[in-house]
Amino acid sequence: MNPERGKFISVEGGEGAGKSTLLGGLRKAIERHGVAVVQTREPGGTALGERVRGLVLDPALRGIDAQAELLLMFASRAQLLREVIRPALDAGHWVLCDRFTDASYAYQGGGRGQPTAFIADLERWVCTGLQPDLTLLLDVPVAVGRGRVAARGGVDRIEVEADAFFERVRATYRDRAAAEPQRFRVLDASQPPAAVLQAAADAVLALGGACAT
Amino acid sequence: MNPERGKFISVEGGEGAGKSTLLGGLRKAIERHGVAVVQTREPGGTALGERVRGLVLDPALRGIDAQAELLLMFASRAQLLREVIRPALDAGHWVLCDRFTDASYAYQGGGRGQPTAFIADLERWVCTGLQPDLTLLLDVPVAVGRGRVAARGGVDRIEVEADAFFERVRATYRDRAAAEPQRFRVLDASQPPAAVLQAAADAVLALGGACAT
Repeated sequence: MNPERGKFISVEGGEGAGKSTLLGGLRKAIERHGVAVVQTREPGGTALGERVRGLVLDPALRGIDAQAELLLMFASRAQLLREVIRPALDAGHWVLCDRFTDASYAYQGGGRGQPTAFIADLERWVCTGLQPDLTLLLDVPVAVGRGRVAARGGVDRIEVEADAFFERVRATYRDRAAAEPQRFRVLDASQPPAAVLQAAADAVLALGGACAT
Repeated sequence: MNPERGKFISVEGGEGAGKSTLLGGLRKAIERHGVAVVQTREPGGTALGERVRGLVLDPALRGIDAQAELLLMFASRAQLLREVIRPALDAGHWVLCDRFTDASYAYQGGGRGQPTAFIADLERWVCTGLQPDLTLLLDVPVAVGRGRVAARGGVDRIEVEADAFFERVRATYRDRAAAEPQRFRVLDASQPPAAVLQAAADAVLALGGACAT
């Protein structure tokens, strides 16, 4: 008999929202409850995806067409779904993914103006109905997030965009969260990391399937 | 006033059909008639596209998902259209392209079984109606083409596919040519290169716009 299908959790948010810090803590919190976790990221998570990530974030490729960027993101996603996410869920593992399709709507849709209908067509073909069971949106004012990124230094091709771009990204994320409250959990990421982690872990463990110890 | 829009010519065909040899000769033949030619290729033709080409043809990435491959091809195409093809045509130059969207239908559709409707959705969003004025299909039996590739040595990730794959590619190309006889010109590429070039040049120059000398 097949094991029970694992849970799929995506973590979304703008630059400097604290995704990386949260993901590490969240993974440990889930594992402490006896659940095997596969942690991955977009773009990336596979040999092909990491090569695509290198293209998309390369500051030397400043003139990437917005359509091309969107298609590259979905190419990475197709590979990640087939190679990592679907097999892990089928095996009963939980998947913790740093960004997923919501990021395409926020960055390439809201940020760069690619039509929602185009993104929806790609989602239909590539994801074929698979959505995260829970999406944690780390919401933080753009100025706060950018301050954190500046403090750590070394910005990539996306991070050099203007504030207006990131305001559109944030607004799109919040609109999506408001439209799907059953899937999204919006976390105030201007709080201290420990408080964000606690709220995130509570939401994740409420999905069930984890054995309290 | 804007100059007259240039003509867009794509050259298609399976492995070892002789596209590279033809393209060089064809370019010279068009230029001899007083027309500025921009020669490019897919995947590739731009900084991003050439990086994508490196991914798609890399023998080390044997497990590329068929959807991911298709999306990478369209990412390269979106960049090429915006950066090279549309500006050149608008400036009145002729564009000579080594493969275009027909190759996605032949390789990722016929060869790898990606749904025609998916490719058509991508074509609609990315090409927005732009099609070559003329597509030269270099048609050659699979065994002949593969013999030529083997003779030149060094095969890439696509060229290692089985004969059945290339038979499907060839059949898809021929079906498309039969469905759009006004756009396609099928050339028997088992002929000597000079004969193929002569037939190709005749078809291209019949598009008009070139000043006979």
